[in-house]
Amino acid sequence: MAPMVLKRWLVGDPLKSTQAAHERLSKTVALAIFSSNAISSVAYATEEILLVLVLAGTAAVAWSIPVSFAILFLIVVLTISYRQIIYEYPEGGGAYVVARNNFGEYPALIGAAALMIDYVLTVAVSVAAGIAALTSAVPSLFEHRVALGLAAIIFIIIMNLRGVRESGKFFAVPTYFGIGVLLLMVGIGCVQTFFGQGVSLSQNSQTAVEDLTLFLILRSVAAGCTAATGMEVISNGVKAFRQPESRNAATTMLHMSLILAVLFMGITFLAYHSGVQPKADETIVSQLARLTFGTGVLYYALQIGTMLLLVLAANSTFAAFPQLASILARDGYMPRQMATFGDRLVFSNGIIILGIIACLLLVLFQGDTHALIPLYAVGVFISFTVSQAGMVRRWLTKKGPHWQTKLMVNGVGAVTTGGGVIIISSTKFIQGAWIVFALIVILVSIFRSIRSHYKAVAEQITLTRDHRPPIPQRNIVIIPISGVDQAVIRAVDYARSHAGEIRAVLVDVDPQATARIQIQWAQWGCGVNLLAIPSPYRSVLGSLLDYVEKTLEKEPDIWVTVVIPEILPAHWWQSVLHNQRALLLKTALLFKERIILIDVPFHLKR
Amino acid sequence: MAPMVLKRWLVGDPLKSTQAAHERLSKTVALAIFSSNAISSVAYATEEILLVLVLAGTAAVAWSIPVSFAILFLIVVLTISYRQIIYEYPEGGGAYVVARNNFGEYPALIGAAALMIDYVLTVAVSVAAGIAALTSAVPSLFEHRVALGLAAIIFIIIMNLRGVRESGKFFAVPTYFGIGVLLLMVGIGCVQTFFGQGVSLSQNSQTAVEDLTLFLILRSVAAGCTAATGMEVISNGVKAFRQPESRNAATTMLHMSLILAVLFMGITFLAYHSGVQPKADETIVSQLARLTFGTGVLYYALQIGTMLLLVLAANSTFAAFPQLASILARDGYMPRQMATFGDRLVFSNGIIILGIIACLLLVLFQGDTHALIPLYAVGVFISFTVSQAGMVRRWLTKKGPHWQTKLMVNGVGAVTTGGGVIIISSTKFIQGAWIVFALIVILVSIFRSIRSHYKAVAEQITLTRDHRPPIPQRNIVIIPISGVDQAVIRAVDYARSHAGEIRAVLVDVDPQATARIQIQWAQWGCGVNLLAIPSPYRSVLGSLLDYVEKTLEKEPDIWVTVVIPEILPAHWWQSVLHNQRALLLKTALLFKERIILIDVPFHLKR
Repeated sequence: MAPMVLKRWLVGDPLKSTQAAHERLSKTVALAIFSSNAISSVAYATEEILLVLVLAGTAAVAWSIPVSFAILFLIVVLTISYRQIIYEYPEGGGAYVVARNNFGEYPALIGAAALMIDYVLTVAVSVAAGIAALTSAVPSLFEHRVALGLAAIIFIIIMNLRGVRESGKFFAVPTYFGIGVLLLMVGIGCVQTFFGQGVSLSQNSQTAVEDLTLFLILRSVAAGCTAATGMEVISNGVKAFRQPESRNAATTMLHMSLILAVLFMGITFLAYHSGVQPKADETIVSQLARLTFGTGVLYYALQIGTMLLLVLAANSTFAAFPQLASILARDGYMPRQMATFGDRLVFSNGIIILGIIACLLLVLFQGDTHALIPLYAVGVFISFTVSQAGMVRRWLTKKGPHWQTKLMVNGVGAVTTGGGVIIISSTKFIQGAWIVFALIVILVSIFRSIRSHYKAVAEQITLTRDHRPPIPQRNIVIIPISGVDQAVIRAVDYARSHAGEIRAVLVDVDPQATARIQIQWAQWGCGVNLLAIPSPYRSVLGSLLDYVEKTLEKEPDIWVTVVIPEILPAHWWQSVLHNQRALLLKTALLFKERIILIDVPFHLKR
Repeated sequence: MAPMVLKRWLVGDPLKSTQAAHERLSKTVALAIFSSNAISSVAYATEEILLVLVLAGTAAVAWSIPVSFAILFLIVVLTISYRQIIYEYPEGGGAYVVARNNFGEYPALIGAAALMIDYVLTVAVSVAAGIAALTSAVPSLFEHRVALGLAAIIFIIIMNLRGVRESGKFFAVPTYFGIGVLLLMVGIGCVQTFFGQGVSLSQNSQTAVEDLTLFLILRSVAAGCTAATGMEVISNGVKAFRQPESRNAATTMLHMSLILAVLFMGITFLAYHSGVQPKADETIVSQLARLTFGTGVLYYALQIGTMLLLVLAANSTFAAFPQLASILARDGYMPRQMATFGDRLVFSNGIIILGIIACLLLVLFQGDTHALIPLYAVGVFISFTVSQAGMVRRWLTKKGPHWQTKLMVNGVGAVTTGGGVIIISSTKFIQGAWIVFALIVILVSIFRSIRSHYKAVAEQITLTRDHRPPIPQRNIVIIPISGVDQAVIRAVDYARSHAGEIRAVLVDVDPQATARIQIQWAQWGCGVNLLAIPSPYRSVLGSLLDYVEKTLEKEPDIWVTVVIPEILPAHWWQSVLHNQRALLLKTALLFKERIILIDVPFHLKR
């Protein structure tokens, strides 16, 4: 079993159910797993803001400072309001769960669809940006960026199939390394600036191609919103924390937001102060690192750290996506097998599907971060808004202690993120946001039709009180033969282990051959009745089907079991030389009620 | 059953076996079916000769007359020697049959492979040339030639699936129409020339690009050999004639050769006399027709006639190819299903395969006759040589009345056609003849490995004298369940019609669910034993497989039948929502000995 060995080697040994509790994550490991998504967005958020502002010329870049304060406000609001969700939904409170609890089906499914799109795009965007960090440092790799991105995704898939805890350990070191070097850069850069040693580029001023309108500033805010992406991940994964889950999760959320805010504000400030401008082949962060560290060991450490952080950000959704899929599957909105635990207690199906779609996106958009970004933020902010609005509804109905304060917090959250949705979708609609809206509609209708199918099935197969236990039916066993050999005798042997009436059936196309087979049957047929049926049309298949049909018609209460002697070749490609008639027979009988098909294989040795 | 209705409408109603005798062909119909192949080659043979000679300048074209006499000699030799084969092998004496009878396995298989390649190429070349006749008259269709060719092949396939006789009637009229207009053109052209009214083109002389060497003349002979292609078809199809088969076939052969010789010599003579030269966008025959008839009704009639003749030539091999395939299949050199009669007493499988390969060739060579020709003649002449050499051997061993004369006839045939093989393959080796040699080697080795596989199978499944009838074995029936519903109860119901011991097996992943199912089972389980097996690894599949394995190990003499309750959705695309676990289980158990898998489908209505 070579494939099994390979699988074990790739994904490790299966774990017992009792080990599940030990799979819980410490705060340190959880920060590495769940926060890399949010924190890593500092690698591209500042650049996205500048890309918009620079359209109005170099002077407009000064607007990056007020824009970044707007984003900081957003981060603070999201931190406080998601901490409330964490305490209120220790089971894991994604947009879907919150909305299902507090609204009806539709808002919940919209939230779920938005989250799913978000997860897939997180993988694609993060990997694309991570590879951009790499190619900024090693420009010769630029042309291989798609292949590098695919390799990264496949690597993450395999790691995730190995199980949550091991992935956590595996990813913690590089995540902290990435955060560390970024903080170091921001720190040194700020000190240099403070003491007036900061390198400032000669302002090679950019000519304006657009006016500095309110719309342009809103666009840059929308672009900056990407900094907040990934902040919801912890609230979906509360269950993965050690006890007390909610408290640990809330603390981790705070740490994460702090790091995110410091890095985002620092990078934006440094970028403004040093006057770096977006380039096609080098990221803003890479340019800042060169200015701060020079192109030495620390520069390369920062680029590698950024890349690792981003690639591991992609990893964070691999924990969240299968969890969401399994919740949806349990509610009947996704195929039931998505709810199944895999060998390693993780939801293997979800991991594999997420990985494949992300790979497709990466190829489709040729690994370009900027092209993917317009699709990205919309989904995230829709799910934010659904969550926050759900919480507002919750406080209004549930009330409880301090409900007015809580209501206000989530109210501000809902208004802020809702505003984000409006800004992002109005400024980026044509560039790709419309795709997300279309996908949400499609996904919601798929969810609903899956659910209604399962409901219809349940109605059809459920046992009702007045369903009487069936009376055992008679079983007529038919063995179609065209000769007498060991394969046929094996089938007869199996059929004889049945209680029913057994008939071997031979289609008489050639009287001589029929006579010969009848003689052989007398010797080998084990006393089973052999029936030669005429075939005026020389169609073996047609005559057999007719016979089976007639048998069914004659006795409407019986099962008809067709036992087919089949030769199983030693090599798969030899199959074309065998069983063609058996295949046709099976295809013709497959969908008939009361007919049961049985292959009795005769295994060839060579 | 819409597909069946469509099939009936396309291929007609099935025929009874007793109708088979009436399927025999009259000489008139047989000439249309079997002779179009040989006769239609006059549409391109002259052109192929001129294409070679013109390389040595306009003066060299005079050599077309002696070359055509060489081809005439070939036609005469082939006619006489194939008539002997027809009398000697009334069962149908293709190269394969003759060689198998008189030589060993290898020459026979080489003959068979050469014939097969010949048949496929006949279809491709004839259709390509037929479309060239059409596009000569209607140049605007030139760019659609591949699509037109494919349409023609598909049309022929459908006609052939309707059965031999109907095809014959269907094709007789156009064949005779084509022969008629061609004869008319040659006749009028010759009369015009004789009375000095023949239009002679102003000799716009072509500069020589090659010297007029012996090699060039041999190349033009090789090119002319294409005129003889298809002359063997009658000898393969003697059985299809009315009684007395051999005599009717031999007479038809004579008629065919006569028509072929007159047309080929006439066209070559007219081409030389009028000074027409090969053009890329108009065939020689089209040019001659314009000169003879003017571009009027008769011109178009001739182009249409030629096209029909060629397209129907392709049709002739559709009778011969499946016949050869079925002979090979009966001898074990081809998959056994090739030997099966189709609904319409024709060998549907062979027809479809031939058609598909020809379509591929047509697309691959972009419908270009000249590109296909170098591959074509080699195969034909190898099969000629194998046949003739086989006959020489026959007369030497069998002797009989007048054996010396007969020996001489076939001896001359063998030497002439063998010479043809040498000339064609030496002059066209690089242009494509090598492909044919390579294909022959590949086909022969495929034939041999199929045969050796069937032999190995026969040895393994044949019942020997000391093979004792098996003692009926015990049967343990296992029904894996994960809940109690109508689908499961239906499977239990079926299982109860067995004599063996029945066990429902439930994998215990969730103790609560297990307890609930056990209570339900007490009510609905029809007294069948329910076994809850533990699953420390939460792997339902793994635990089930373990259980089945252990059951097999415990009792080495039993059958283990696994009855799988399966939900059969009303629409195929719903399958993705069901039975994933059943599928995995079946895949894992498929190739185990003593395990029999049974699906008991529960048919959903919606």
